[in-house]
Amino acid sequence: MTLRTRLTEKLGIAHPILLAPMGGVAGGRLAAAVTDAGGLGLVGGGYGDAAWLDREFEAAGNRRVGCGFITWSLAKNPALLDRVLAHTPAALMLSFGDPAPFADRIRAAGSVLICQVQDREQTLRALDAGAEIIVAQGTEAGGHGGARATLPLVPALVDLVAQRAPDAMVVAAGGIADGRGLAAALTLGAEGVLVGTRFYASTESLAHDLAKARVVAASGDGTLRTTIFDIVRGYDWPKPYTGRALSNIFCGRWHGKEADLAARVTDEMKRYKAAVEAGDFSTAVIFAGEDVDLIDDLPPAASIVARLAQEAERALQSAASRLT
Amino acid sequence: MTLRTRLTEKLGIAHPILLAPMGGVAGGRLAAAVTDAGGLGLVGGGYGDAAWLDREFEAAGNRRVGCGFITWSLAKNPALLDRVLAHTPAALMLSFGDPAPFADRIRAAGSVLICQVQDREQTLRALDAGAEIIVAQGTEAGGHGGARATLPLVPALVDLVAQRAPDAMVVAAGGIADGRGLAAALTLGAEGVLVGTRFYASTESLAHDLAKARVVAASGDGTLRTTIFDIVRGYDWPKPYTGRALSNIFCGRWHGKEADLAARVTDEMKRYKAAVEAGDFSTAVIFAGEDVDLIDDLPPAASIVARLAQEAERALQSAASRLT
Repeated sequence: MTLRTRLTEKLGIAHPILLAPMGGVAGGRLAAAVTDAGGLGLVGGGYGDAAWLDREFEAAGNRRVGCGFITWSLAKNPALLDRVLAHTPAALMLSFGDPAPFADRIRAAGSVLICQVQDREQTLRALDAGAEIIVAQGTEAGGHGGARATLPLVPALVDLVAQRAPDAMVVAAGGIADGRGLAAALTLGAEGVLVGTRFYASTESLAHDLAKARVVAASGDGTLRTTIFDIVRGYDWPKPYTGRALSNIFCGRWHGKEADLAARVTDEMKRYKAAVEAGDFSTAVIFAGEDVDLIDDLPPAASIVARLAQEAERALQSAASRLT
Repeated sequence: MTLRTRLTEKLGIAHPILLAPMGGVAGGRLAAAVTDAGGLGLVGGGYGDAAWLDREFEAAGNRRVGCGFITWSLAKNPALLDRVLAHTPAALMLSFGDPAPFADRIRAAGSVLICQVQDREQTLRALDAGAEIIVAQGTEAGGHGGARATLPLVPALVDLVAQRAPDAMVVAAGGIADGRGLAAALTLGAEGVLVGTRFYASTESLAHDLAKARVVAASGDGTLRTTIFDIVRGYDWPKPYTGRALSNIFCGRWHGKEADLAARVTDEMKRYKAAVEAGDFSTAVIFAGEDVDLIDDLPPAASIVARLAQEAERALQSAASRLT
């Protein structure tokens, strides 16, 4: 039994599951594994390192994978887009910024344009740019994002997209780590899900082993949205985006004291880099979503895809069986 | 066709839908209307006004309704509990504080003990106190609440409750304003939903007509969690609770400047009270959830209950039909 949706039709995939393009974490091997398992893997283009991207597309071999970029960062190095389009990605996802300057080149290259949004205004802008898939990302998501929560955001954007661009569709992101979340997304009117943190804790993820272990051990009560890791890493993220991370000692020291951190960022950046080098995650960031409660193991990506699909089928059947 | 769940069995109701006990808004007439329509109405006990409560239980007539309290406020006036239990409420819901001092009296009176929680630790405390129903409230909810989002919180607490107290059950709250949300809650493992904002915008709600009109007109992007309305109303809410409200001019002036507001609260409180008297909602608070996007009309509560149930049935059937 499989779930057929407009997303599976559009992308020619078996399961309505996309790998979130987590920067530095979703490499070619993980993306290929998700694609091989019947989803679609998106390589994490992040801030845009050309050599890294070439290497990871190489690692994906001949698998059909896509790629995701941080839009405001891509805008600083727009030539990178052509370099990635040369790898003929199945889909190109833009998040956090205006997609308009890139949209035509992406669609002209035959790549499906996916835009990740956090509110209604961004959705309208993405549809104006010709987005074919809108990823409605809730605040419970790991990594960078906004303030709206997935459960009410998805149906609101489903209605908006149906009204403005009925050929486009909504995919839900944020808080989805098992098949119950996939089933819920479908009942909310989404055509599929984009999953990050669950794949962070997979065999093929490029995350540090100690970071993966912390995700497995963490509670959803122990994450927060913050800008301190952007400040200390020297990334000039525009407002209002924040990053959801596991709380650690560095958060206890600096969250809420952003101006103090910015004032001594030179020293703190050195210390932070040393912590990253040393794999010291009491300081180094682990971006993760509130759904870490639902993550208890480190399986291969293929088994995550299979579980998500099977559990979703069971959750839908179980809920539908309550209809009498 | 109807949805049968452990909640409908437990409470002897036709639809797995509870009215959130919104203080000052969920009066006896609204609670009775929800009960008459096959859900269970909970009168909003709020901070605890005995005369108001007597009047609203009177207004509910002989209908089977429950009541909800702000626990830390009830603790300042514990005798109020006996006064409400004398009305033989079908269920008593405690939110925001330690339920232990009240739990035995509630269950001894034959009232079902419902505890609303926002995280795992509160859930364990509620189960220890003997809660029969755990309301998992996400941050997207209107009014007071916490930081976790509904979609990942519900399955996490479903797993926790199944492990610790399998006879207890989880009801989802926060972000649910239509049947898609109810269907999603069921696929996440909840046995039903607690709905606030959607009933705020109903014929029988005690909210001001201008406030209802603002809820209908509002966008989910235009709400925020804040403490400024507690400061200016003189309520000493414990951390970490905040209240989600529609953003208005008062928010633009004071949100983020809480210490300044506290410093001149005497003057500001006078102005605020005058605004409330005048129905001036550019200053006065309207507590509402992110799901205001999904609220476009002011129907009777009975038609809200019927719609929620019918839409949920359709959403579940539609999602299940994607299984091939």
